[in-house]
Amino acid sequence: MPYVNVKVAGKLSKEQKQRLVEGITKLLEEVADKPPSATYVVIEEVDRDNWGKGGKLLSDK
Amino acid sequence: MPYVNVKVAGKLSKEQKQRLVEGITKLLEEVADKPPSATYVVIEEVDRDNWGKGGKLLSDK
Amino acid sequence: MPYVNVKVAGKLSKEQKQRLVEGITKLLEEVADKPPSATYVVIEEVDRDNWGKGGKLLSDK
Amino acid sequence: MPYVNVKVAGKLSKEQKQRLVEGITKLLEEVADKPPSATYVVIEEVDRDNWGKGGKLLSDK
Amino acid sequence: MPYVNVKVAGKLSKEQKQRLVEGITKLLEEVADKPPSATYVVIEEVDRDNWGKGGKLLSDK
Amino acid sequence: MPYVNVKVAGKLSKEQKQRLVEGITKLLEEVADKPPSATYVVIEEVDRDNWGKGGKLLSDK
Repeated sequence: MPYVNVKVAGKLSKEQKQRLVEGITKLLEEVADKPPSATYVVIEEVDRDNWGKGGKLLSDK
Repeated sequence: MPYVNVKVAGKLSKEQKQRLVEGITKLLEEVADKPPSATYVVIEEVDRDNWGKGGKLLSDK
Repeated sequence: MPYVNVKVAGKLSKEQKQRLVEGITKLLEEVADKPPSATYVVIEEVDRDNWGKGGKLLSDK
Repeated sequence: MPYVNVKVAGKLSKEQKQRLVEGITKLLEEVADKPPSATYVVIEEVDRDNWGKGGKLLSDK
Repeated sequence: MPYVNVKVAGKLSKEQKQRLVEGITKLLEEVADKPPSATYVVIEEVDRDNWGKGGKLLSDK
Repeated sequence: MPYVNVKVAGKLSKEQKQRLVEGITKLLEEVADKPPSATYVVIEEVDRDNWGKGGKLLSDK
């Protein structure tokens, strides 16, 4: 019954999303015996204006 | 002081959002005695390209 | 495919959790046509020392 | 290694985001000795149609 | 700069956590070119009394 | 109406939590004109066995 939330700065292509979803789902099956049908993966693409690191927005780095 | 985050794949109409917010707030009052004024509900409508289930994106199913 | 995260300050009984899960799942079916089998509800019971409102911890109010 | 997620209803200017990121990062350093380079702050600007309080959407208040 | 939150029902061993963290970090590098040093993975082990699916708590299934 | 979630690795003292809640609430008022009474801050103290960075658990570094 895993729920995985992935936040990345910037955009991903559809193919990158497919590979992330497939890879994370497979990993949870192999490592923790979680059935793939029960795994949800939600990907959030965060604007670089909305992500801060080291006290600065990524868009200002 | 409850905080509720609802993620759904795809879009909801404004009326659906109103009914979800009203219903969840009422439920928390009835079940757990939480005052409605203290309940926040945040709804996130996730693109079907960004939600994976069973190792595949919903948009590919 | 909804995923719902409920955070409350303090503890809930098992019966309260059952009623919240049942009620939220039913609401998502009635309002947005989401099949119950696809709805996950995760409840987090947050210590009142870890929840701030109005600039103060709930445990200090 | 802190991760901070800020959700606000409505929009913020870029300057407001810069000040929030800078201020939260500094606070975590002063209060809890967290190195600024390790602090992530992700800001989410939620539409007022998607935020409920007191059983109503903010956009209906 | 990815941040990944993994919620599972029940407990994981330390070795399982190590493998999940290593695998997800590697996947984000391979698929999306994210430097491993920038990837945070936070794992939450949720009590089966606090996770509902299909309108019932997992502990009641 | 802000909601802020702070995740840190390891434990904080009650005084540190008080200062974080007070500081973040004040910052949101000064920077974005959010009334303190509407700001919720939830602090989560994550075990170092459950936080990965750079592909390794913090407890193994």
